[in-house]
Amino acid sequence: MRVPNFLAGAALACLSVIGSGARANDSLVLKRIADEVLRNRYAYENLRFLCKKVGPRLSGSPGAEKAVTETARMLREAGADSVWLQPCMVPRWVRGEKEVASVQYFNNKTRALNVAALGNSVGTPPAGVRAEVVEVKDFRELDSLGALGQVKGRIVFFNYAMDPTQVQTFRAYGLAGAYRGGGPSRAARYGAVGVLIRSLASNLDDYPHTGATRYVDSLPKLAALALSTNDAEFLSKALRNKQVKSLYMKSSAQMLADVPSYNVVGEIRGSEFPDEVITVGGHLDSWDLGEGAHDDGAGCVQSIEVIRVMKALGIRPKRTIRAVMFMNEENGLRGGQAYADAAKKETGKKFIFALESDAGGFVPRGFGFTGRPEQVARLLSWKKLFEPYGAGELHDGGGGADIGPLRPLGTVLSGLNPDSQRYFDVHHASSDVFEAVSPRELNLGAAVMAGLVWLVSEYGL
Amino acid sequence: MRVPNFLAGAALACLSVIGSGARANDSLVLKRIADEVLRNRYAYENLRFLCKKVGPRLSGSPGAEKAVTETARMLREAGADSVWLQPCMVPRWVRGEKEVASVQYFNNKTRALNVAALGNSVGTPPAGVRAEVVEVKDFRELDSLGALGQVKGRIVFFNYAMDPTQVQTFRAYGLAGAYRGGGPSRAARYGAVGVLIRSLASNLDDYPHTGATRYVDSLPKLAALALSTNDAEFLSKALRNKQVKSLYMKSSAQMLADVPSYNVVGEIRGSEFPDEVITVGGHLDSWDLGEGAHDDGAGCVQSIEVIRVMKALGIRPKRTIRAVMFMNEENGLRGGQAYADAAKKETGKKFIFALESDAGGFVPRGFGFTGRPEQVARLLSWKKLFEPYGAGELHDGGGGADIGPLRPLGTVLSGLNPDSQRYFDVHHASSDVFEAVSPRELNLGAAVMAGLVWLVSEYGL
Repeated sequence: MRVPNFLAGAALACLSVIGSGARANDSLVLKRIADEVLRNRYAYENLRFLCKKVGPRLSGSPGAEKAVTETARMLREAGADSVWLQPCMVPRWVRGEKEVASVQYFNNKTRALNVAALGNSVGTPPAGVRAEVVEVKDFRELDSLGALGQVKGRIVFFNYAMDPTQVQTFRAYGLAGAYRGGGPSRAARYGAVGVLIRSLASNLDDYPHTGATRYVDSLPKLAALALSTNDAEFLSKALRNKQVKSLYMKSSAQMLADVPSYNVVGEIRGSEFPDEVITVGGHLDSWDLGEGAHDDGAGCVQSIEVIRVMKALGIRPKRTIRAVMFMNEENGLRGGQAYADAAKKETGKKFIFALESDAGGFVPRGFGFTGRPEQVARLLSWKKLFEPYGAGELHDGGGGADIGPLRPLGTVLSGLNPDSQRYFDVHHASSDVFEAVSPRELNLGAAVMAGLVWLVSEYGL
Repeated sequence: MRVPNFLAGAALACLSVIGSGARANDSLVLKRIADEVLRNRYAYENLRFLCKKVGPRLSGSPGAEKAVTETARMLREAGADSVWLQPCMVPRWVRGEKEVASVQYFNNKTRALNVAALGNSVGTPPAGVRAEVVEVKDFRELDSLGALGQVKGRIVFFNYAMDPTQVQTFRAYGLAGAYRGGGPSRAARYGAVGVLIRSLASNLDDYPHTGATRYVDSLPKLAALALSTNDAEFLSKALRNKQVKSLYMKSSAQMLADVPSYNVVGEIRGSEFPDEVITVGGHLDSWDLGEGAHDDGAGCVQSIEVIRVMKALGIRPKRTIRAVMFMNEENGLRGGQAYADAAKKETGKKFIFALESDAGGFVPRGFGFTGRPEQVARLLSWKKLFEPYGAGELHDGGGGADIGPLRPLGTVLSGLNPDSQRYFDVHHASSDVFEAVSPRELNLGAAVMAGLVWLVSEYGL
């Protein structure tokens, strides 16, 4: 499938050289942009602030509120022509007391497990839950055991590991993600009393990785905890060795009523086609365990850097550029929906393109695009311009969770694709901290994002 | 220049499909190899051992000696048909007591600087050196000031920063490296009494980065210290503000007599063409400040993994494969020379190909090749086979310091090119530790190295 796209892109590239003017100059503009970003530490220092001075930013939390104020400031300092807050109601999930889980052996000794409640999950009864544990490797095994009555009254331990042979770790994440999302309700169907999920992590360590789960309303809601990969290996072995008498788990997580929050938007008004809007963004909320450095502080500060670099270099984009800090990507997507809802109401405006960076602040490899074939072909034709930055892998297909709701408006969607090898080492865990981000990798991502945004601002779509 | 190469490669690819048999199967073999590497932690655990149980391995040190024994064991455990030590004499440079440097202000207060003696450098007199300091940004400025007599009796501070706008950080390193290598003797030419060099580092932090310097024999040898980038910025500012009265530096570094050491070689004998030898290696010695994790424990354990994966999968390579742990890359290159000298004496053997991994255990981007045009074209024609692993950037030009001496034997040289963004954050500094290496990145590099070695073993060159 990629070959026809590539050929189509090449053909259109020739057309667009004729149609769009000074293409020979584009690589020089991209170089100026990249040099300005790479010489500076604005994105990195903004990320440091977001991680160390603001900290975790779960929707509805004081951290999220502070992040709104601070990124609005950063956008103003970057030189945005205007900065505003876009209201949205967000869910307010709270972890409560530190959750605990432990194994009780047949010899009555116990061993604590490294666990963290899944986002949006309910808690256990106040005294916790103690039950036998049944391990399943996948839904098929759950269904078999459930049909035999072997799940009823027990805690289900989903031990589905991310597939290490998937070079693109997001594919492995997608496969394993089904258990975090759907596992608790699927276990409830068979009368389980609690759920443990092996963390969606690519490495073996002691960090539990949280993330949202989704309950089926018609089934009982079970408390659900993520278990570190090391402890998943341990528990599996202990079960194989018939050492485990029972498992205890306790969580006081709960979902509170929705609260008001905001997306943060900073804009540079287009000089020739101000009604054509290009969106570039990341999400401002993060899980509560780490600092939300790669997920997605990186995408936020990179988007702010897109604004800054244009202003610093005196580049006046022909089309309007909006950097957006989306709220509530992690456990509700309310910010993305609010942005699209507001876009629908902006009569006369055309939201031509949206780029999201939400795959970590790692070295960029390229971009994915979703749009009409001729639009995608135009974008793919820019491949050579990104190769000097190691980001020449341009693909058909891609976008981001927050910008998805713009697609029905005809917006072409794009996602930055950083290298994915290290993302699931830290994703949704307490190890997702500022120190895990390389300033050069972060900057290089910002540089190619700014380059792509500039190209679209110059030539349209 | 790349386009003709690519076309030549494509043309030869067609020929080689006809000439070399089951090419359609190659991608499946490479996938088997990659899966086996990615599922396992052998390379990572070997690296942990090399970093944590052996530690720094400067040539001639007890650590280097232990590393010889331990990697010979690892090669045997990996399943090499035979493992042997190849003797070579190596220089024995010792840092001595922790070196110190400090600024004395005009108000007589002092401030310590983060410094480390450059490899192969001499020490100061036992009482140290105190002198005024003169900052130069490059050799031109040194020559100007030297001609004016403003260097005589002073300590020269070379403050040449790595250029952050070089996307390929090795280019920036090459430019800045001239000062570490040649700075001390160039300063001696003008009567300087000591030298400070801004660390060759891409980030701003407190680690001094060492590395070899080279004295011109006809000039006085000056003690030379690397200065952390943060302290280079500090010192430059203090000098600009006319606050610095003098600088004090003391080092007891010295070069001792040569001592015996070894390369470590592990071989799988080729099944059809045993006299055609493929070399794959990294260097076993490291600087003394960190653990030599990226530089070059990574290349060593990846090379061992090439042997292991063949044996684990029951792949019998047609040509002989030798994994080589080269000694003394950092401050003498004696091991590489000894390997080539021995190769010359192995009558009847043809050293067809050598691959070195010495650019860090980061995510692989591709390989560079040095050989006759038709040989390079053949190698470049394998691009598509490496693209699924994100390592499809195959280039004309490349090799490695240790395998360089093989080139006069007609050996085609190749270097693994990992992503270079983070390398000079840790290179030659105490931050080059096991924890800085990602297991997936390390493994992916080993996987594509094994794939390339297998292709050459199958089809020759």
